[in-house]
Order: sequence, then C-alpha cells, then structure tokens
Amino acid sequence: MRFHSADLTVSTSKSMEIVDVPEQVDSVLAESRIRNGVLNLWVPHTTAAIMVNEHEANLWEDILTILGQLAPPSVNYSHDAKYVRSIKEQNARAHILNCLVKPSISLPIEEGRVLLGTWQSILFLEMDGPRTRSIHAKIMGE
Amino acid sequence: MRFHSADLTVSTSKSMEIVDVPEQVDSVLAESRIRNGVLNLWVPHTTAAIMVNEHEANLWEDILTILGQLAPPSVNYSHDAKYVRSIKEQNARAHILNCLVKPSISLPIEEGRVLLGTWQSILFLEMDGPRTRSIHAKIMGE
Amino acid sequence: MRFHSADLTVSTSKSMEIVDVPEQVDSVLAESRIRNGVLNLWVPHTTAAIMVNEHEANLWEDILTILGQLAPPSVNYSHDAKYVRSIKEQNARAHILNCLVKPSISLPIEEGRVLLGTWQSILFLEMDGPRTRSIHAKIMGE
Repeated sequence: MRFHSADLTVSTSKSMEIVDVPEQVDSVLAESRIRNGVLNLWVPHTTAAIMVNEHEANLWEDILTILGQLAPPSVNYSHDAKYVRSIKEQNARAHILNCLVKPSISLPIEEGRVLLGTWQSILFLEMDGPRTRSIHAKIMGE
Repeated sequence: MRFHSADLTVSTSKSMEIVDVPEQVDSVLAESRIRNGVLNLWVPHTTAAIMVNEHEANLWEDILTILGQLAPPSVNYSHDAKYVRSIKEQNARAHILNCLVKPSISLPIEEGRVLLGTWQSILFLEMDGPRTRSIHAKIMGE
Repeated sequence: MRFHSADLTVSTSKSMEIVDVPEQVDSVLAESRIRNGVLNLWVPHTTAAIMVNEHEANLWEDILTILGQLAPPSVNYSHDAKYVRSIKEQNARAHILNCLVKPSISLPIEEGRVLLGTWQSILFLEMDGPRTRSIHAKIMGE
C-alpha cells in the first residue's frame, strides 16, 4: 500500500473561469508510481470547485452561463449585505455554487492511468477570481 | 489490503432516464470478498451521472423535470451552435447537468455490504440516451 | 493499513437547516490514530446531504434560499401527489436537492488532520427536518 500527495497550482485571469488540469494530474500520478488505486482531488477553497467534463471552450461558456443563472445576481444575498463595504467579499454566489459543483472528486486509477473516458478532462472551476489557487491531489493504491 | 475492479453495463431506451443498479453493485462486491472498505463508482462519460436516492418512479419523473429546468432548453448554448448540423451533438444541457450531478460517488462498505440507508438505492442517470453505457466499480479494502 | 468507522449524530429543529460538524469529525479522526489517508463522510438518508463551505450564518441563509429556488414549491411533484394524504411524505424537493448536493464527500487526511482550507468547515444539510440523523465517517489510511 502506497500513499502519495502533491499540491497543484492553478492561476486564473477572470472572475469565473474553467481551467483544464489533466497534465498536472498525470505528472503527480507518474511521480507516485501507483498503478492501481484511487485519486482524490481536493480544492481547499470555498469559492472554487473541481469537475470532470469535456475540454471544449464553447461548452465551458455554457456551463458558466447556467451556473450564473442558478445563483442569480438579482437575489439580495445576506452574506453580501454583511460585507457591503468590501466588494471583494460579495461572493455569496460563488460559495453557493461550490456547494453544488463540490470541491472534491475521486477517480479510479487502473494500470497506471486515471480512467478518464474519451471525452473526459479534469476541470478546475474558479468562481471568485482572478486568483492563484491550489488543488491537493492524494493517491492511495499499490 | 485488496483491490477489486469491474465494469457494469447500463442500457437505456429514452433520452433522459434513471436506472437502478444495486443488484449489479452487490454482485461486484460479493466477487471482491472485501468486507470493510470503500466503493468508488465512476461513470466514464460526460453526459451521464451517478446518484443515490429512493427507488420511486414518480420521484424519478420529478428529478428529471427539475434537472430539465436547471439547464433549460430555451438557452442558446454555444456548444450546440457549434454542432448545428448534427442534432446528436446538441447535448450541452446533458454536459452541464453532469457537472452538477457528477460522474463519481464513494460509498462505505461495512461487514460485507454497501452501507445504504433504508430508502437509498444506487441510481444511474442517462441524459443523452438511448445508449449503452458503462460504470466502473472499484473497491479498496480488506 | 488501518480502517476506522464511526457514526455521528446530528439533530435539527427546522425543516431546512445547516449544522456544522467539524468537532465531531475531529474526534473520530483522533480516535482512529490515522495520520495519512482519506476520510469518507456518508449520509445514509435521501433527504439530507453533506457539504464543505464557510461557517457563516448569513451565507447559510443564502444557500437555503437558492436551494429552495432550484426545486421550487410551485412545481406539481408526482412524488408528492402520490402521498397527498400524508403531508410528511411530501418531500420531493428534498430528494431532488440530495441528488445535487450529494450524500457523500471524501477529504484528504495529512499529518493527522483533515486538510480543510482557512474558510472550509464540514456542513450537514437537513432538508426534511426537524429530525435526528446519522453521518457515517470512514477513514482508510496509516
């Protein structure tokens, strides 16, 4: 049984942005030399998240459009009212969407690779950027 | 420490459909002879997902109704515009809902069984069917 | 390799309520003496869920407001129509939101502590209370 952990870094340039991270994940997996196990990706932030879907820029626009509608700007958020003097803290929408998209995902590792389907890519979702964020990758296996 | 993996197959007959898979999962668990550990279910697709809720056909209708409203047909999806000549590729809504319902879930195994509550059943969610899909089950434990 | 399991209990006083559980989780982790591994939190219920976000009462109000809008009371839910004589069973909205917020989350353990970010707290989400519920905590590691 082996354990391997590493922190990945993601930088964004917009307030909401999707960033593809499969190469960084592959390199952590190669370092670990684990060929059979489970990879847990963990975002230690409350206004960013992790998901797995297609690498397709038009689709990413659509995802951000719909997420923006699920927690619409028209609602009077109590969290934002509390921080009325600090525009930077008016991020209730990002917190709420983190509860839906989630900061954690577990993926199987088989024969030394993450078992991603043909169209699957690992996507980091920034919702309160631009920022530099970290993703904690933890692999347990043999 | 033991590892056991298996691929389950799910076939659907509608574009959006919920299918119950607990018997297939039980049979993978029995094969594994693991009595204490964690089961990771992984859907290697970008337009299907996995969830755990009640086996109740009326409820399943309600789930599909609300999901359909979260990513409404009235939005002009960029992903779909790109594939305007191929109706089969106009599946942005299914991709977006996968980011919410997720393609992965981890469940505890205690005393040789998946620790499902009284009303819990493992449900596969097809959002771009009808299709034949796979679910990768991976168990780590002892 | 070690395994440790424990059941936490959460009681609520409202129909929808968020409850912070990090102290209970810390005490399970201390008992386990596992310093490196993964913690899986599992809610064996179909109308409650688990999430990780900020401990901030105003934000919790906002989360409940938006969740209430995602599965609005104005829809005629088939599940509720089936149980028209039993107001207690008219909980389709809670079931649907469980499919989105999810009953499971996996968190990394490093150096004997759950790797929560500065603003992260483990939050139990009751959606069909008041009730007494359980959360199953399972830790695998060394």
